[in-house]
Amino acid sequence: MSESSPLVGIVMGSNSDWPTMKLAAEMLEGFGVAYEAKVTSAHRTPELMFDYAASAEERGLQVIIAGAGGAAHLPGMVASKTVLPVLGVPIKSKALSGMDSLLSIVQMPGGVPVGTLAIGDSGAKNAALLAVSILANSDASLRAKLHDFRKEQSAKAAAMELD
Amino acid sequence: MSESSPLVGIVMGSNSDWPTMKLAAEMLEGFGVAYEAKVTSAHRTPELMFDYAASAEERGLQVIIAGAGGAAHLPGMVASKTVLPVLGVPIKSKALSGMDSLLSIVQMPGGVPVGTLAIGDSGAKNAALLAVSILANSDASLRAKLHDFRKEQSAKAAAMELD
Amino acid sequence: MSESSPLVGIVMGSNSDWPTMKLAAEMLEGFGVAYEAKVTSAHRTPELMFDYAASAEERGLQVIIAGAGGAAHLPGMVASKTVLPVLGVPIKSKALSGMDSLLSIVQMPGGVPVGTLAIGDSGAKNAALLAVSILANSDASLRAKLHDFRKEQSAKAAAMELD
Amino acid sequence: MSESSPLVGIVMGSNSDWPTMKLAAEMLEGFGVAYEAKVTSAHRTPELMFDYAASAEERGLQVIIAGAGGAAHLPGMVASKTVLPVLGVPIKSKALSGMDSLLSIVQMPGGVPVGTLAIGDSGAKNAALLAVSILANSDASLRAKLHDFRKEQSAKAAAMELD
Amino acid sequence: MSESSPLVGIVMGSNSDWPTMKLAAEMLEGFGVAYEAKVTSAHRTPELMFDYAASAEERGLQVIIAGAGGAAHLPGMVASKTVLPVLGVPIKSKALSGMDSLLSIVQMPGGVPVGTLAIGDSGAKNAALLAVSILANSDASLRAKLHDFRKEQSAKAAAMELD
Amino acid sequence: MSESSPLVGIVMGSNSDWPTMKLAAEMLEGFGVAYEAKVTSAHRTPELMFDYAASAEERGLQVIIAGAGGAAHLPGMVASKTVLPVLGVPIKSKALSGMDSLLSIVQMPGGVPVGTLAIGDSGAKNAALLAVSILANSDASLRAKLHDFRKEQSAKAAAMELD
Amino acid sequence: MSESSPLVGIVMGSNSDWPTMKLAAEMLEGFGVAYEAKVTSAHRTPELMFDYAASAEERGLQVIIAGAGGAAHLPGMVASKTVLPVLGVPIKSKALSGMDSLLSIVQMPGGVPVGTLAIGDSGAKNAALLAVSILANSDASLRAKLHDFRKEQSAKAAAMELD
Amino acid sequence: MSESSPLVGIVMGSNSDWPTMKLAAEMLEGFGVAYEAKVTSAHRTPELMFDYAASAEERGLQVIIAGAGGAAHLPGMVASKTVLPVLGVPIKSKALSGMDSLLSIVQMPGGVPVGTLAIGDSGAKNAALLAVSILANSDASLRAKLHDFRKEQSAKAAAMELD
Repeated sequence: MSESSPLVGIVMGSNSDWPTMKLAAEMLEGFGVAYEAKVTSAHRTPELMFDYAASAEERGLQVIIAGAGGAAHLPGMVASKTVLPVLGVPIKSKALSGMDSLLSIVQMPGGVPVGTLAIGDSGAKNAALLAVSILANSDASLRAKLHDFRKEQSAKAAAMELD
Repeated sequence: MSESSPLVGIVMGSNSDWPTMKLAAEMLEGFGVAYEAKVTSAHRTPELMFDYAASAEERGLQVIIAGAGGAAHLPGMVASKTVLPVLGVPIKSKALSGMDSLLSIVQMPGGVPVGTLAIGDSGAKNAALLAVSILANSDASLRAKLHDFRKEQSAKAAAMELD
Repeated sequence: MSESSPLVGIVMGSNSDWPTMKLAAEMLEGFGVAYEAKVTSAHRTPELMFDYAASAEERGLQVIIAGAGGAAHLPGMVASKTVLPVLGVPIKSKALSGMDSLLSIVQMPGGVPVGTLAIGDSGAKNAALLAVSILANSDASLRAKLHDFRKEQSAKAAAMELD
Repeated sequence: MSESSPLVGIVMGSNSDWPTMKLAAEMLEGFGVAYEAKVTSAHRTPELMFDYAASAEERGLQVIIAGAGGAAHLPGMVASKTVLPVLGVPIKSKALSGMDSLLSIVQMPGGVPVGTLAIGDSGAKNAALLAVSILANSDASLRAKLHDFRKEQSAKAAAMELD
Repeated sequence: MSESSPLVGIVMGSNSDWPTMKLAAEMLEGFGVAYEAKVTSAHRTPELMFDYAASAEERGLQVIIAGAGGAAHLPGMVASKTVLPVLGVPIKSKALSGMDSLLSIVQMPGGVPVGTLAIGDSGAKNAALLAVSILANSDASLRAKLHDFRKEQSAKAAAMELD
Repeated sequence: MSESSPLVGIVMGSNSDWPTMKLAAEMLEGFGVAYEAKVTSAHRTPELMFDYAASAEERGLQVIIAGAGGAAHLPGMVASKTVLPVLGVPIKSKALSGMDSLLSIVQMPGGVPVGTLAIGDSGAKNAALLAVSILANSDASLRAKLHDFRKEQSAKAAAMELD
Repeated sequence: MSESSPLVGIVMGSNSDWPTMKLAAEMLEGFGVAYEAKVTSAHRTPELMFDYAASAEERGLQVIIAGAGGAAHLPGMVASKTVLPVLGVPIKSKALSGMDSLLSIVQMPGGVPVGTLAIGDSGAKNAALLAVSILANSDASLRAKLHDFRKEQSAKAAAMELD
Repeated sequence: MSESSPLVGIVMGSNSDWPTMKLAAEMLEGFGVAYEAKVTSAHRTPELMFDYAASAEERGLQVIIAGAGGAAHLPGMVASKTVLPVLGVPIKSKALSGMDSLLSIVQMPGGVPVGTLAIGDSGAKNAALLAVSILANSDASLRAKLHDFRKEQSAKAAAMELD
């Protein structure tokens, strides 16, 4: 966890989602963005989840990243209790490989948005990057870091060799 | 709505779900089972939805039927707030024909069950029939009615003519 | 198997389904609910299956849990022969990961309901929990146990640490 | 219906399947194959369905064509009660366009086969043609008719003009 | 291979399909049905495949079982060149688990039927059983064997123990 | 179009996407958020699209909403050329109902995020709402409007009557 | 049909595919590319189809475009009989909207390629454009026309107005 | 890499795609076709990708093979910048097994074609073979080699033994 007051909240339904969601946390750390990460289950701790979402704005969070698998209700339910931007990460599920998670997260009705990322690891990383880009709208140094990140990423891709 | 104290609660996310969910209501009426039906949206009225689910037991409900489409969170979120049996009806959605609704409802994590029925009209009727069969466990006259219903249904099917 | 007269019948098409369905049995045991479990195949022993379903009510069963994979006909065929509540568990299949099992179980025509749970292990556990919630409608101590179960489950989820 | 003793039985779950299954009947008529057609529902008249299937062999049927939609259990359950060849026709369903019907029919476990045809009209026609080809194994004149049918069909296709 | 003149032809697109299709061969052997098995690829040896199919009838075959994966054209193309009953077995494919194989085989246009079995091993076994049931229409001893097979199968299923 | 300098850019691949994307525009208007809307096709005008995306930051845009159907490359390609938050709206496609659009937009590789909304109209509305929530992070009056919007939305849902 | 010796052959399984495939023909006409178009069914006229494919090279064709729906075997079977480039167009099918056609065409085994285009109208147009781009490799004026086509297409897209 | 001036360009989004795309390279080598292979990512190095595609024609390339996974934009974006024939290879993806890659590549809008091959290894091999067949239109010795390749392939298939 970072020391300054967190700007991004990472929530997930179970600690079994952490190996995926940790990639979001690590990406935020790389950008020096203060965040908090915790388990809060839509189905098993609905009140905690509601309290978390409802108090997020006054606690100073600016973006919430929610990861969930299967009948993945966490991102949408968090979004129902806050007007902060909520980003959803579909966790790869056992039987249906995350197709269930994806549809449960992305197919929200008009009125309560969840910005959904790819299934699994790529989605977790990109949720963090999208959060950074949101914060960067009012933080020039963060935007500069994003440009640097992209440049470095491009350079790495451009330098890839085929054996 | 029926006059005696309702045993079954029918909830749905929007009145646009009513043409489907009405079939559940009519089926319950046919069995003389007292019910209530109302709109309570997981995403747009989460507190009402939570209150509804949390108070259902003390208000005497014995079964809750929840219909929802798309990222259909209503049945699972109701189930997170009550230990009553919750039955889910996936509403046929515009783009994905209810496959999204079905997966969002049925793929619940272990610990919080939703008994899921078929997509659309058949599912609504069957949710009511399953509710009746649950109530019939402690109501012999209702169980007798169920047997009659099945007999009549069989007779009708057996009498079907092909032109 | 439990000693008192069983209230829940667990059936499955093959003993290869037992590793999944055993989770339903263990959950029922945890709640002290008497149950029986047996193999009865819709396709290979249709008469036994019919006899089982047809006699379930008079033998005192109150809920039937049926697990099946692939062209999973067992839950629906059991439901065709009893007015007891039937809960279906789609077993994860080899080629299609249980999507075939799910659709074969859940897409029942109006008139013969099967309350369907998630594919695989979560579905088996939840079928048992839904059975308990049905029984709890007329068993106050069981309902209290359900409340305890949920509380404990919430507490465990709330206490989850991220390393 | 044809007058001589029927060799092919056409069954379907409801008379709403008749517009599709009638195409099988008409094809058999075109070949002069005696058949019978009737509604027998796996879910609503399971005993009739069992009796139908169990008595088919001694009544002289040589092939059974079964059409069903949604959780399409009819073909598989008929097959569980007879050793006659059973051909399944997935009826196009409302929400899932027959993908549910197809998987419910074709994904039978080893031991009880159903020869499955295409979803809808083509499937009904082809079930009849496959039945004819089965009967033709011991009926030289029928086989000759099949060859004629194919020749005519080829000729028609070869003569198709593009405007 | 069996010694008497083969009644059933088993074809497949590659010897990599043999581990699956061998189950069909073994089932036929169990019934004492003479068969032949060979590789004949729709895409790589189209002329051989056509010759095989076109000569099948005069060579005395009564049923052809064709297994194929991916864009599985073999069963349908064999069917285009013979009026014998053709049974198709969708081989489990690498990327799409046989869903591509299944649709490529089953969705035949009206006029040229392929009786399709389940994806993979169950499908191969059932193709053989369906072939036996077809042959049994004019072979009373084979039909008796089929009844025995079913009885044994039922007995085994009925005797299954749960640990 | 609004008069002040636009904060949100709405782009789409063709004017045939406008009936859907217009819902995003109308939502932004309702919040008094300045936006621009234009056609810029990833496939037919790739340079314009690149220029649009590359210049968006310096032109003062803070969020880009991109709608596309089929092999929907627009959102991802815009995201490749800007570090601004990019939101993607999958347009319902003719053959595959938007499932192709959804997967093409959401399954972005790690490094270049697109926040994806639901297929079709709900997605367009929600893209605008998510854009507003992003802008609201540094605009207290906008956040207040969002709270009002949600309250009104809740009130409407709570007042829904069933006939 | 064009007057000079055709360079592109357009084939389809039935004249019901012509409304789609005609778009390929019209596109070729627009480029002044000589082509022929005819019905030749893989399943109903397999010999004609084989002859067509086998003689295509010596008749001077340089590209074959094949459109087919359902178990769409035509493109792959044509490809099995020629080393010319074969392009496949999946026709939108009734039950499965062309998903079956797409998988049947695109999932060819290694060794016999079919370049597959989109389902339906876009696919037909693009098959023609890809054929033109292939021919343009040895026809500078055709390549120039392709550049003009793209420029015009870009200009039209760039000029699209939103009302 | 081959020494003479390359006629085929193989591009891919990441060196993790090389194990698949290498099969295309090896096939081209087998035919003695000069090619180049490099990583150029649509999302991480869009300018390089554009430059590559835009300069391909003047550098003498005659076919471009592009492999990509997930939201696979590379083939379509390359196609947007060149009138050369572009062939797309969907790489098998982690969560969705390449179904996302396939739809993202094949479902191109009318006007910008990508000839799409099968998911994974078969697709890579076939992309090379299709490229060879395109080049062979103006290279008689290459066409002869293609005929030899097919003959050898047929001979190998015809010689396959079943143990």
